[in-house]
Parts: sequence; structure tokens; C-alpha cells
Amino acid sequence: MSVHKPLQQLTKRATASQCLNLQKPLHHKPRIWQPQDRQMATVIPPVTQDMTSSKGPTAMVFMNMGGPQTTDQVGTFLSRLFADGDLIPLGALQGYLGPLISRRRTPKIKKQYASIGGGSPIRKWSEYQAAEMCKILDKTNPETAPHKPYVAFRYADPLTEEMYTKLLEDGFGKGRGGRAVAFTQYPQYSCSTTGSSLNELWKWRQRLEAPKGNNNVSAADTEGSILWSVIDRWPTHPGLVEAFAENITKTLEAYPEDVRDSVVLLYSAHSLPMSVVNRGDPYPAEVAATVWAVQQRLGFKNPYRLVWQSQVGPSAWLGAQTSDTVKNFVQAGQKDLVLIPIAFTSDHIETLFEIDQEVIAEADHLGADGRTRRAESLNGSPTFINALANIAGTHLNNGEICSRQMGLRCPGCKNEKCLAQKKFFMGQGQQDNAAVTL
Amino acid sequence: MSVHKPLQQLTKRATASQCLNLQKPLHHKPRIWQPQDRQMATVIPPVTQDMTSSKGPTAMVFMNMGGPQTTDQVGTFLSRLFADGDLIPLGALQGYLGPLISRRRTPKIKKQYASIGGGSPIRKWSEYQAAEMCKILDKTNPETAPHKPYVAFRYADPLTEEMYTKLLEDGFGKGRGGRAVAFTQYPQYSCSTTGSSLNELWKWRQRLEAPKGNNNVSAADTEGSILWSVIDRWPTHPGLVEAFAENITKTLEAYPEDVRDSVVLLYSAHSLPMSVVNRGDPYPAEVAATVWAVQQRLGFKNPYRLVWQSQVGPSAWLGAQTSDTVKNFVQAGQKDLVLIPIAFTSDHIETLFEIDQEVIAEADHLGADGRTRRAESLNGSPTFINALANIAGTHLNNGEICSRQMGLRCPGCKNEKCLAQKKFFMGQGQQDNAAVTL
Repeated sequence: MSVHKPLQQLTKRATASQCLNLQKPLHHKPRIWQPQDRQMATVIPPVTQDMTSSKGPTAMVFMNMGGPQTTDQVGTFLSRLFADGDLIPLGALQGYLGPLISRRRTPKIKKQYASIGGGSPIRKWSEYQAAEMCKILDKTNPETAPHKPYVAFRYADPLTEEMYTKLLEDGFGKGRGGRAVAFTQYPQYSCSTTGSSLNELWKWRQRLEAPKGNNNVSAADTEGSILWSVIDRWPTHPGLVEAFAENITKTLEAYPEDVRDSVVLLYSAHSLPMSVVNRGDPYPAEVAATVWAVQQRLGFKNPYRLVWQSQVGPSAWLGAQTSDTVKNFVQAGQKDLVLIPIAFTSDHIETLFEIDQEVIAEADHLGADGRTRRAESLNGSPTFINALANIAGTHLNNGEICSRQMGLRCPGCKNEKCLAQKKFFMGQGQQDNAAVTL
Repeated sequence: MSVHKPLQQLTKRATASQCLNLQKPLHHKPRIWQPQDRQMATVIPPVTQDMTSSKGPTAMVFMNMGGPQTTDQVGTFLSRLFADGDLIPLGALQGYLGPLISRRRTPKIKKQYASIGGGSPIRKWSEYQAAEMCKILDKTNPETAPHKPYVAFRYADPLTEEMYTKLLEDGFGKGRGGRAVAFTQYPQYSCSTTGSSLNELWKWRQRLEAPKGNNNVSAADTEGSILWSVIDRWPTHPGLVEAFAENITKTLEAYPEDVRDSVVLLYSAHSLPMSVVNRGDPYPAEVAATVWAVQQRLGFKNPYRLVWQSQVGPSAWLGAQTSDTVKNFVQAGQKDLVLIPIAFTSDHIETLFEIDQEVIAEADHLGADGRTRRAESLNGSPTFINALANIAGTHLNNGEICSRQMGLRCPGCKNEKCLAQKKFFMGQGQQDNAAVTL
């Protein structure tokens, strides 16, 4: 049974009391498996679905929000999106207001998707990026090969449920163990995005893998279930920074040399409601870290601002707004502007429609003469895909469970799902979870 | 007359049309004097007040907000502070509301200063830091020695006017030339802080040095006036980061080893009104850059949050609030917290009273048992003072005028003083000022 020993060790769960004991000794960030586990995992195959192979497969799950592939899917997509209180906090009225808003917005958003070719390219890009990354990982990390690519979207197919079912069909979990990495495709952590995806993943894990009747939030021992680890943020990974810098440089090179250094770079990220910012969401600071890292890489040659887009509804959101910024600058005579989508890695409605067809069209209407442009999204950038492989490969090598930062709930968090989810994922490494504040 | 040639070259001003021409060729950031100027400046003494010496003195002016030295000065300090629309935007009612608010707050704030020993230590620290830095610069940068320390506070003595008068008395300007560096002591740039100080400096420069009747914003040629350059931001200078890391590490070492890595680090910066944030003020993103750099230096061993303190009045300010955060964490059982003042470099009322006597006292009241603490402010830290000397020495060596970023007004800026000030300072290097948007 020695072949199963590592499996048993790896899947041993921390108890709830271990998770919350503030006094227990801790290990250095990132949270890692015990050295003896790692050693064993390299000597003996860690988790094996195919008993004839000496290498266990590893599921690499890309988490993102997703988007409708056809205009017919817009209604369903929006209804899921506005039902998510982690993303759009509507309080007690979520169940009433969510469907109302999504129904009212559907015709308008349908037209937007129609104008960008009928659907979002996010599935195409996610599947491509995940598959390409896995090919690289198979070479760089043979001990965890083969790496199998999966995609889990929050509001579009393939949903988390569909991905999890596929994992089980493919031989992971349900007593057979297996390792899966939840790899957020949002470089900067927000409770609205990565947090929401992890809450959903935890929910389906409990429904599909917890022993019948044992839906306990603390994820009591369930031997042979999938062992999850999380890549929860990577805002300043050098490869990500390089990929952004490459696309910015390419865009700048299209400007005449004599104006190139005076082009203003506008790093644009999806905004957050101030209620989320004021709760202590880490996203604004991590987006700023990305921007600073990219500017540093570019030698601060160009003036710049971090601006925020896609505000919806009457409540207060974080600014300055992208659209207002572009309008003000162009009207003030600063027409040479490059917009850089800094918080999404693939094209989506917010780049292809909002920036290209609204913000830049408005700039041209105000006389920008084609001098306000957008840097290409990372999409299929080989530099970016290499960065993904480097992030994932390092994560697998180090035996990380998640970042230490993931364990800290927002100071104003009242969401019990967040606590349960954090306890579950941090318990995967059987370490203490002192940083999970109640 | 060859000795005066560099002086003439160095003090040549850009014309208004040069400042605003968007099409003119630009140089790389940072904005620098032309190579021929720099070369000449090293071969022949650049600016000489004392014609018998081969080295011209350089005035190093530390800009900060200042604080009352006695409780009797509190009223005047607050009236200046609430009169500053760059810091506290009260709109058309500034002249009415400012004095009203400052009068109402004076008794309360007097008590706060009384409880920290009767006055702010900011003057003591600023004068010490500036003097120590100048001693180092005299050794590291002999070609611009002697370096003479000055302090210019925005709301307390010595005010900008007093500092400028002293500069003139000491032999700078008024036809005698001379070089001065305006060195902001706010590591991260905000229009409320560094911007306000620069607006004030520009105002007094125009009043005290512009030829009679020539108060033109473009600062037309005025030979022999002081040549200013600006160190406008330094949020991630490695020496600054190191100084913060040292003080944090020292504080963490006082915790028992078994809980040390689970102490939550709360980086606390003075908040901004959302009206300023939404105008596009660069401060929140630069503070986040500092926090990320310090966390990176510390190896992300501890979970952390960036939080915002000192909100005043009924309008919306950026959060999460420091006080709420500490309260929520302590109540949730996370008592091991270290507060780190991350945007001020010396002790002041916001550390000695607000953090120590309010926030931490409240934490103890809620049962923190002395486990919520504060990292020491940088004050007299030799690492910090070496960092200041390194920042200033590099600035002097490179012949910088200011950062390229300083030329870019906020997208929502309507303050004509900002435009005039930026045009003036960027014109000091006779480069183009393409990035000053109108």
C-alpha cells in the first residue's frame, strides 16, 4: 500500500480547530506542503489515476468570468452575473433586483455582442491558453505530468459545475484522489472575481465530492477526494509584466518618433463599487502594483494614469473613470493616448466594445484623429503563455496551497461563504490557518 | 565671462509655446538638462554664490505639511490647513467653511497635541533629516557642495515664504543665480500634498523673484533667479523600502516566534476624499506601490492590508478605514496586528495620537491585550536618511528637473494654479513640456 501513502498524506485535511487556532506555529509564505510530503511526492508517484503510468495527471483549471458565445446566451449570462452578490452586491434585494436589471439590460448588451462579431472570444482564448500552458508544463514539470487543461467560468459555459463533473468523469476524485490546481485568470485578487470563483468551486466541491450528508464547511476528512491548490494572484509576475510591456511598446512604436514619449498611457481596469473597496478588497492595491511594475519595466518613459472602467448603476464606484479621463484629455489637447486593459488578460466586451467602440469612438468624435488607441490584449501572446507556465510550474514545484494573503478575509467581510471557502482551501495543505480571521 | 556661461544656459527658460507644443521631440524620462549643460556644469562650477570658492552651494529644500510646535499654534495651523483647497476641497465655500471648521476643531485638536507632549515633532525631525542628508551629500556629491538644508512647511513655521526669504538672504537668486532642489517629503505624490506645496512654492517664487509686473505664469526669462528642480515622488526607492522593512521586522520580532508570521500587517496611509481620488489623483496607486514593494522585500511572509486613516467630515473618503479595520479584526479574534504608517516619514499627530492613543487604545479596550502595535516611524532612521541622500544624490547627478509623470495633470483637474506651476517647473530645464495637458 506504499503507493497510496503519499495520497493519504496529501489528502489529509486539517480539522476546523487547526484551521482557526491563532496560537499554533506557522510556516513561511507561501503555504506549502510539509517537506516529507513533497519528498515522497517526487520519489513515489503522488496521485495516480492510471496505475500503469508512473506519473499522475494534474488538472489545471483556469477560472474566469466567461462570456456569452452567441447573442442568444446573453440573457442567461447576465442573469447569472446579476445574481452574484460577490460581484454585484445588491443586498437583500439581490433576488428581486438581479433578474430585473439583467432583463432590462439584455437587449442593449445583445447589440453590443452583435457588434463585436456575435459573442465573446474569452472561451476560445481561455481554452487555447490553458492547452498551450499545459504543453509547456509537461516539459518543464514532468513529475506532475500529464497536465490536463480545464476551464471553469462563473457566468457562462463551461460553468464550474460542468468542469467539476468533467473532472470526475476523467478519473479525478471520488475516492481516486488526484490533484487539481485552481488557477485564477484574474492577475489581481478581488472578492468579486477570484473570490467569487473560489466560493463557487468550494460549493460544487461540497455538493459533488463531500460524503452524503457531510456538507460541513470545514471539509472534514474525505479520503480520495481531489486535492486542490490555488494560484490566487500574480499581479507582478515578471512574465506578465513583460507581456504587457511588449504590447504597449508595439502600440507606441506606431506613433511618430517625435511624439512617442509624450503619449499618455492609460491603464484601465474594471472598477469596483465603493462598498467593496471600503470593505477592504485587495484589488485596487494589486492593480496599482501591476501598473507600477509595468511602468518600471518601461523605464517610466511615458506619463500615465491608472483609471477605472465599466461602472454600472447609481451607486458610487472607484474612479477616475476611463471614459471621462479620455474625454477630458482629448478636449484639453492631449490626443495621444494608449489605453491598456490591465486587469483582464483576454479580449472581452469591455475591450472590444466599451474601449474600442465607445471610448475611442468618442475620442475621435472629439477630434482625437485616430491618435487615441488601445494596446492589444494578451490573448495568444507567447510571452504571456510562457508566464502562465512559469507561474504554474513554480506553484507545482513549491508545493504551494495558496498565498498567505488568501487566508486574510477583508476587514469588513460579512460573507460566511468566504470564511468556509478559505478554511477549506487552506486546510488542503494541512497547515494552520491562523490568518483566516473569523 | 566663461564662468557665467553655464549659469546662463542653466537658467534659460522655455517659452510658453515650447511648454505646450505637443509635436516637439521629447527626451527620455527623467527630464534632464541637455548633455552639453551637464558636461559644462561638471567642468566649470555651475552656479557660484561665493566667487572665491570653486563649488557652488545647492539649497536642499524639504517640503512637508508641518505641524504646530505648541498648542498655541494649533489655531493658526488649522486655519491655514482648512484654507487650502488643494488639501481640503470645500469649493466656493472654502473662505467661509474653512475658518468655521478650523475654529470649531481647534479646542479638540489642542487637547490632542497636549496629550502628545504639547506639539508636533515634525520640525525637529525634518531639520535633522535635512541636515544629516546634506552632510552625506557633501561627501557623495562634491561637485554640487556645499548642500544647505532648508525646510518649507505648508501650514506651520517655517512657511514657504519664510524659507524663500531665507534663501534670498543667503545669497541665492535675485540676479545671483543658484540652484535649489524642492524635495518633497511625501514619498507618494498627491495634488493635496506635494502638489499643494509646489503650488505654494511657485506662488512665492513669482512674488519674490519675478521682475516687477511680470507675474506671467510661463515664467519668462529671468536671468539670475534661482534654478529649481523637483524631487516629486519616490514611493519605491529601495532605501525607503528597506527602512520600512527594518522597522516592521523590529516590531515583529517582539512577538513570540510561534505567532510572528500570522501577525497581520496593516499599512495605514492618510485617506483622500473620493472627489480627489475620482479626479485622478495618483496617490492611492503610488501608496499601493510602496506597500507592494515593502511586502515583496519582506517575502510576503505576513498577510496584510492597505488601509486609510484620518477621514474628516461628512463627504465620502477612500477606505477601508484604519480604525474600522482594527476594530473588526480584533473583534473577530485577530489581535496580532501591526500598524505601519506608510505615507508619512516622521511622527505626527496621526501616528502619536490617532494610531497610538485612539486606534490601539480602542483595540485594547476590545481585548487586544497589547497585541495590536505600531511600527516606529522612520524619524531618525539612518537607513532612511541614507535613502534620502541616495535619492537626492542621484537627482543631482542625473540633472533631473522632475519626473515625467509630474507633467501630467489629473484628468479631472480644473485648477489653473496646477497648470501654471507645472509649466514653470518643467520649463526650468528648457525642455518641451508636451505632457502638461491644458
